[in-house]
Amino acid sequence: MELNVTIKLKRGVADPEGENTKKALNLLGFRDVRSVKSLKSFRIEVEPGEGEGEDEEKVKQEVEEMCRKLLANPVIHDYEIEVVKSERR
Amino acid sequence: MELNVTIKLKRGVADPEGENTKKALNLLGFRDVRSVKSLKSFRIEVEPGEGEGEDEEKVKQEVEEMCRKLLANPVIHDYEIEVVKSERR
Repeated sequence: MELNVTIKLKRGVADPEGENTKKALNLLGFRDVRSVKSLKSFRIEVEPGEGEGEDEEKVKQEVEEMCRKLLANPVIHDYEIEVVKSERR
Repeated sequence: MELNVTIKLKRGVADPEGENTKKALNLLGFRDVRSVKSLKSFRIEVEPGEGEGEDEEKVKQEVEEMCRKLLANPVIHDYEIEVVKSERR
């Protein structure tokens, strides 16, 4: 089972990478660019052990725990979890 | 108009960030994690100047040029462009 985790900055948190990318694009001649936001994603492949079965809800909860414990910083990040590929269909 | 650009590593290019994230998740007790790939995205807002009209195909081509010129490194990166929000619908 594959999941996509998107980590984005919370509203109001400065995004210097996005801002500077916007400036650089403008300077390169792309004057129509109004804003750029930078995001980070992880594509995670999870394979439950034998006999555990694959419960989509359960796996999603597990991935949410991964976000809380490692992938995202709750002070500045929001995250979205999305199932990309479910094996048993 | 808002577009999402996803920059990912080409097949065969080492992804130490993804590998180490996987190791860390395994060490934290998430033993079902088989692989982690790290990706980068940009959410770009483009607003064509007055009188230009909004041609989705044209904007996409412009964003592709941005990828070639600045956002992606063609030696190691692949990119995907996706229209998230079209204003004039």
